[in-house]
Parts: sequence; C-alpha cells; structure tokens
Amino acid sequence: MAIEKEAQGGLEWRVSVPEGSAAEMELESKWIHRARTWLIQLVMTVVSKVTSFGKKAGKIGADDPRKVIHGVKVGIALTLVSLFYYTRPLYDGVGGCAMWAVMTVVVIFEFTVGGCLYKGINRAVATSTAGTLALGIHWIASKSGEKVEPIILSSSVFLLASAATFSRFIPNIKARFDYGITIFILTFSLVAVSGYRVDELLRLAQERICTIAIGVAICLVVCVLVRPVWAGQELHLLVSRNMDKLADSLECLVEDYFMKDKTVEGEVSYSQRSQGYKNVLNSKASEDSQANLARWEPGHGKFGFKHPWSQYLKVGAAMRYCAYCMEALNGCINSEIQAPEHMKRHLRDVCMRLSLGTSKVLKEISSSVKSMKESRSIQVLVEEMNNAVEELQVALRSLPKQLTQSPPPAAAAEAATIEKRHCVPAATISLMEVMPLFTAASLLIEVSERVGGVVDAVGTLATLACFEPIDHKKPSSSVVPRDEESVKPSQEV
Amino acid sequence: MAIEKEAQGGLEWRVSVPEGSAAEMELESKWIHRARTWLIQLVMTVVSKVTSFGKKAGKIGADDPRKVIHGVKVGIALTLVSLFYYTRPLYDGVGGCAMWAVMTVVVIFEFTVGGCLYKGINRAVATSTAGTLALGIHWIASKSGEKVEPIILSSSVFLLASAATFSRFIPNIKARFDYGITIFILTFSLVAVSGYRVDELLRLAQERICTIAIGVAICLVVCVLVRPVWAGQELHLLVSRNMDKLADSLECLVEDYFMKDKTVEGEVSYSQRSQGYKNVLNSKASEDSQANLARWEPGHGKFGFKHPWSQYLKVGAAMRYCAYCMEALNGCINSEIQAPEHMKRHLRDVCMRLSLGTSKVLKEISSSVKSMKESRSIQVLVEEMNNAVEELQVALRSLPKQLTQSPPPAAAAEAATIEKRHCVPAATISLMEVMPLFTAASLLIEVSERVGGVVDAVGTLATLACFEPIDHKKPSSSVVPRDEESVKPSQEV
Repeated sequence: MAIEKEAQGGLEWRVSVPEGSAAEMELESKWIHRARTWLIQLVMTVVSKVTSFGKKAGKIGADDPRKVIHGVKVGIALTLVSLFYYTRPLYDGVGGCAMWAVMTVVVIFEFTVGGCLYKGINRAVATSTAGTLALGIHWIASKSGEKVEPIILSSSVFLLASAATFSRFIPNIKARFDYGITIFILTFSLVAVSGYRVDELLRLAQERICTIAIGVAICLVVCVLVRPVWAGQELHLLVSRNMDKLADSLECLVEDYFMKDKTVEGEVSYSQRSQGYKNVLNSKASEDSQANLARWEPGHGKFGFKHPWSQYLKVGAAMRYCAYCMEALNGCINSEIQAPEHMKRHLRDVCMRLSLGTSKVLKEISSSVKSMKESRSIQVLVEEMNNAVEELQVALRSLPKQLTQSPPPAAAAEAATIEKRHCVPAATISLMEVMPLFTAASLLIEVSERVGGVVDAVGTLATLACFEPIDHKKPSSSVVPRDEESVKPSQEV
Repeated sequence: MAIEKEAQGGLEWRVSVPEGSAAEMELESKWIHRARTWLIQLVMTVVSKVTSFGKKAGKIGADDPRKVIHGVKVGIALTLVSLFYYTRPLYDGVGGCAMWAVMTVVVIFEFTVGGCLYKGINRAVATSTAGTLALGIHWIASKSGEKVEPIILSSSVFLLASAATFSRFIPNIKARFDYGITIFILTFSLVAVSGYRVDELLRLAQERICTIAIGVAICLVVCVLVRPVWAGQELHLLVSRNMDKLADSLECLVEDYFMKDKTVEGEVSYSQRSQGYKNVLNSKASEDSQANLARWEPGHGKFGFKHPWSQYLKVGAAMRYCAYCMEALNGCINSEIQAPEHMKRHLRDVCMRLSLGTSKVLKEISSSVKSMKESRSIQVLVEEMNNAVEELQVALRSLPKQLTQSPPPAAAAEAATIEKRHCVPAATISLMEVMPLFTAASLLIEVSERVGGVVDAVGTLATLACFEPIDHKKPSSSVVPRDEESVKPSQEV
C-alpha cells in the first residue's frame, strides 16, 4: 500500500512540474524510498519469522525440557570426544582414526538409552564382522593373482551389498538391524576396496575399532548418567497415559452428548479432553519404535531385562480398537441428526453410569500399569461396568414403553390423535427420532466391550511382567481403599 | 526323549555288568551319541531356520520385485564407485577422500528417488555450510592466541551441536532436514576439531565436496536410470489403491452381514477382502513419509514439480476417518448379538444398494485419481448414493410398521397375544432385537457421509493438481461410458 501511494505521488509530481532533472531526482528518491520500504519489510518478515520460530522452539522446550537437555547432552559428548583428541597430538589428518570417534558420537547419540544402545551395538558388531569378512576376502583375492583380484573384490562388494540391502526389507531385520546393515555394507566396501596390504589393514582395523569403542563409551556414559531417557519407561508411560486419555475422552463425550447446555463455559479445554482418544489412534508408530528400542535396554528402574515389551504393543492395539469405536461414537454425537432432548433424558443416567464405570475401569488399569501392582478393585469395577451395560440394555428395552407412557405435552397430543386414527402407538412414530440415541447407546456398549479386551491384555501383561500381587491379608494399603471408596458414591450418581 | 532313553540304558548296563572299563566305554559311546544327536538337532534347526528365512525373503521378493532390483541397484552403484577408485591409484589411505564417495553411496542410496534426493541434497548443502562456518570459526580462533583457541573451538562445537540437535525436535525441520542436521554437526565437529591450518583445510574441503558430489551423482544416475521408484507415484498409487480397498471392504462387510449363509465357499479370500480397510487404518506413517520425500522429486510422469502432495495427506485423512467408522461397522457385524434374519431381510436390499452405491463412488474417485482425469459420472454417483441414504432412512422409518404387519408365523402369534393383553404392538417387543440392525444401518449411513468427505478432498486435489477436465462435447471416451453403463444395471440390483 505504501508503494502504491508513492507511485501515485510520483505521478502527480511529474504532471505538475515536468522538468527533467527534478523528475530524475524524484525518480531516484522514489527508488530509494521503495528500496527502503522493501528492506524494512524484509527485515520485518525475517524478524517475525525468527520470533515465531523461536516461540515454537521455546514451546517445544517448555513442554518437554528433556529435549533441551538432550541437545546439551549431545554437546557435552561431542566436546568430550573432541577435547580428548584436541589435548593429544594424535590427530594427524582429517581421515585419521580420531575422526571415527567423532563420527560415532554424532551418529549414535539418540534421545533414548535404547536408541543409543541399538545403534552402538549395531555399529560395533557390524564393523567387526564386516571388517573380518572383508579381510578374509582381501586375503583370498591377493593370493589369486593381479588380474583376478579386482574381479573378486568388485563382485564380492556387489553381491554382499545387494544381498544386505535386500535383507533390509525383511520386517524383523529392518526393526532390529537396519542401522547395522548400513554399517556392514559401508565397512565391507571400505576395507575391500581400500587396496591395502592385509597387515596394514589389521592395524587400521584395530585403530578403528578402538576409536569406535571410545565413541560408543562416551555416548553411553553421557546418555545414561545425565538425565537418562529410557525407551522402555517412555513406552510404559505412553501406554498408561493413553488409557487415561481414553477414559477422559469417553466421560467427556458422553457428558457432552447428554448435557450439551451445561458445558458452555470452559468449552475449549473440555473439547480438548474429549478429543484425547485421537492421540491413541495415532500412537502406533511411536509405540512400535519404542518397543523396538526398549528391547536393547538393560534392566532399569522397575523393569527387568526381559520385560515383556511386546505385550505393551498388544495393549496398545486393544486400546486403538477401543478408540476406533469412540471415533464412531464421536461422529454420532456430533452428527446433525439428533434425538430430541426429552428422549435423551430417559437414557441419560444409565448412559452416564456406564461411561463413568467404563472410564473408571480404564483409570484403574492405567494406575495398575503405572504402579506395576495388580489391581485390587478391577474385578469389582469390571463387574460394575457389565452391570451398567445390562442396565442400559434394560433401559433400551423399556424405552419405547416409557416414550408411549410419558411423551412431552405437544408430542403427547399429536401421538394421541395418530394413535386413535391408525392404532399405531407413539413409539412407532418416534422410532426414527430415537435412532441416533440407539446408535450412540450401542456404540457405548461396544466401547465397554472393547475396554474388556484392554483389561484382558493388561491382565496378560501383569502376569508376564510379574506385577506386584495383591496382599489379600492386609487391605490397608493407601491406594486401593481410596479407590474402592471412590467407587461407592459413584453408584449413587 | 532320546537322551532320557540313553540315560536309562546306561544305568541298566552298569547295574548288570559293573566292570570299570566296560562302563567307561559305555559312558564314552553315550557321550558320543549325545553329541551326535545334539549336532544333528542343531544342524536341523539351522537348516529349517535358514529355509524358512529364505522362503520369507523369497516371498517378499516375489511380492514386490522392485525390492530385489533395489538391492541390485545398490550393488551396481557401489561397484561403480569402487571401480572408479580401484582403477585409479588415487586411493592413498583408508582415510583418503575416496572414502567419502563410498560412504556417500552407502548412506544416501534409498529405495525412492525422493529419498535419494532428500539425502543427497541435505548432505551436500549441510557439508558445504558446516564446512564454511567451521572454517570461519577456525580462522577466528587461530587469530586469538594459542590459549583461547581450544576454548573458542570447543565452545562453538558445544553450542552448535546442542542447538542443532534441539532443532531436530521441531516437526517441520525434522521432516525436511533431519539428515542434513546430522551431517552439519558431523562436518562442523570434524573440521573445527581437526587442528589443520586454514589453507590445508580449504584443499581438503574442496576434495571432500568433490568426492561427495561424485558419490551423489553416481547414486542419482543409478537410482533414476535403473527402474526408478518415485515416492510421489508410490503415494499416488497408495492413495488410490486404498480407496479401492475401502470400497471392496464396504461391499464385502455389508454383503457378509445380510447374506451370511451365501458366503461359505471361498470364505478366506472373502474375509481378506472385507478386512482391506485395516490397511487404510495403518497407512498414515507411510503416507506421511512418502509425501515428505515426494517434495524433493522433480516432475516425473504425470506429476509436475509443484504437485500438491500435501493434499494427498488430506485425502488419506478423510479415508481413515471413513475407515474408523467401518471398524465400528465391522465390530457391529461380528458382534454376538444379532438381529434375527427375518428383520434383516426388510433392510437387505436397500442396505446393499447403499453399500454398492458408496463403493461405486469410491471406485469412481479412485479411478479418477489413478488416471488423473476429472470424473464424468461422480456427481451422478454421489446423487445416487445420497438417494440410497434417503431410501434407507425411509425404510428404517417404515420398519416398525412392516414388522407389525408381517412378522414370521411364530412371532406373529406371540405378538398377537401380547398385543391383545397390553395394547402394545409387536414393534415395541422386537425393538431390542432390531437394535443391532439399526446400529449397523446408522453406521452405514455415517460411512456414506464420510465418503462424501473423501469425495470433497479428491475434488480439491483435482483442482490443485489440474486433473484433465471433462470434455463436455465428446462423451465418446473409452472409460466413462463404460462406467455409466455399468452403473445402470446396478440400479436394478
């Protein structure tokens, strides 16, 4: 807009005083002005982009300070390894062996200890096996004459690289040894093509393995000692957090459906809570990768070395199965076609009871997973949930009768007229209106059934991971009675 | 068991003939036998594992021969780069610059062209910027005296490595520059810590960039010339294939529900087809990564350079939204509680019509996406689908009436008795039984509505990607009339 104004101004000026030099000056000042405006705009854009980027980065850091700490950890590890070499005059070339230590640190250092171990072990094992293999082939090639030597070496590189690359497509290998295979191909090619004599290669291999070991050691020490992040623990927390999210979502969705008018205030945070199940829908990838990495971790905290991480994936799958159904429930709740409020009122209490019961079951198994203790009250809670399912089914069965008995004044009058004429009760007329309510109720029942699947999966997890059993004799633990107390009043809700 | 038998045999022998030497011989032969059994078992296990692994690998190769070709391509590229250096006496050390070419090929070569380009460009740009930056800091450090020099270098490594590592947590940067940042940190640390003089470094940097360029060039040439796999095309095909899967699933599920007895033969392939929507549920990760890589690809085949790849993600999201609902429908169809067959029969035709109409819409947009032509018949098909939705709603509305009018013999008698006593029609009684049918029907309606969302997303894609418009004057194309013809008879189904 500034430029447009400027152009108009210039035009006016030229029209009124058409002298050559003045016009040129004007043109020049116009250009300067334009350039200045452009520069200012550029600077403003850059500044605003940088600040928005900074804000985004700041938010990420504030949300999870461990990410900032991870950055610092990488800095520490790199500085350590570089100081190690800087203080000693060992570094006699960019290609020297010290390089491998720096490279190892940069490439291996991952956010979780499992990631570090996975890459470190893969790198070490792949380097040594590929190195040995390449040395052997090198020796054979050197014995078979100058002409055959390059053929043997090239064809071995071709064959091994092709086979190893293809093996990366096999899911099990991909999950556990992907990085190792890259390093295997790399080391094999480097050694096989190097053109060194075997004794020289042995010295080099020794140096290289030594520097890689130093790199891996520095990585692991920094990774484990400075605020470690364990992939296993992350998976454990992710799964139990997702259960809480499912529970919250379910409660909110059903409450939202039956008490729409009461939720106007604080609606944003409310709808955020009700959409928590969407995180569950999208958490497959991170669960898979964390379970993969957790396998490499030694025992830590409450988790033994052979902790059944793969069972967490089954729990996760059961939760997703549940979340799919909640997606459909959400769609049904937010659909345009809705049952009238007076019909909803008939099922409100029993539906709320079921959703509360189901969410309590989820919360109970979540806290059981979190604390790694068998749950004392889960059987009672599941029974309550099942009772609520039955109650809802009974309520659904009696709904048409109720509707015929107590329609709202207007509907009653209308229904009465129709009933007289056609001998068709109000239930028939309003069936179409009740349908969305039916669908919602059936989906709610289906959700509870699927929660049963989650409970089973968690039960298997409890057995496999040897959760702390319930002490039947002393029921005076601090957690369980509170849970049971909190259950009782809810039955009167 | 063999070992157990063996041990018993030994015991018997020792009891009957307790001579020293004979017992020893027996013990020896026992051990030999044991060892032989163990060895045979070991060999058998290894052989069976290897064969099962081989079968698995063979199946993967047969399912997608491009994976085998990819392996061969990597072999070719590595052989090329190694021959390049083997034939010239340039290679004067494992750490020589030639190493970088080999390393570049191993690390950069990816399955898709987009992956190769992403890594190649990231590597080249990151190496040059980090190298330049490190040179600058090196120069500053060398000017500031021997004591301050290591401090400046180490602290710059620490700060840059920390900041760069943290920046990898920012989603946009992670998606586009993750690999580049690793290489940036690596190059910067290597150069900054190297301890060379600046002029020496310049020569090294030049050599290194040259060898990396050679590596990238070889990779790209092999990747693009030998049976290229384009990430963009993969995404394109994945999305349209997923639409077909959704269509097939929906048809099968509904058919399965209403004609359970007719589908006994060939049930396996049938149930496989009906579960196709599960692929859609799990395809988010591959869609995301392919869309990320497709951005780096130049125009290829029917796709321009600025093809709207991100819109494919929106289409994918709309399809998943649809698949969630089909998950719930599947649950409902496979649930234990089922509406009686005679009730199902009332809705069978109209539900089948709707599912067929919906699946036709999906197949039509799938073929429109596949051929990148605007669809001629999509509006008609969507209209038909919406009509079928309305028909189903009408049928649902009239269902209670129909049920009261024509119950099956047994039910009719029962209903009649109850009706006389309580003046409650059969509709009320059987409502609970009809409920699963209602739920299935509502979910079917919801699925069609969500398919509408997919149609909209594909419409946007057609606009953004400039699909070939319909030629209104010449309707004699080979595809469209056949589609329209195939639509007509189905209306009589």
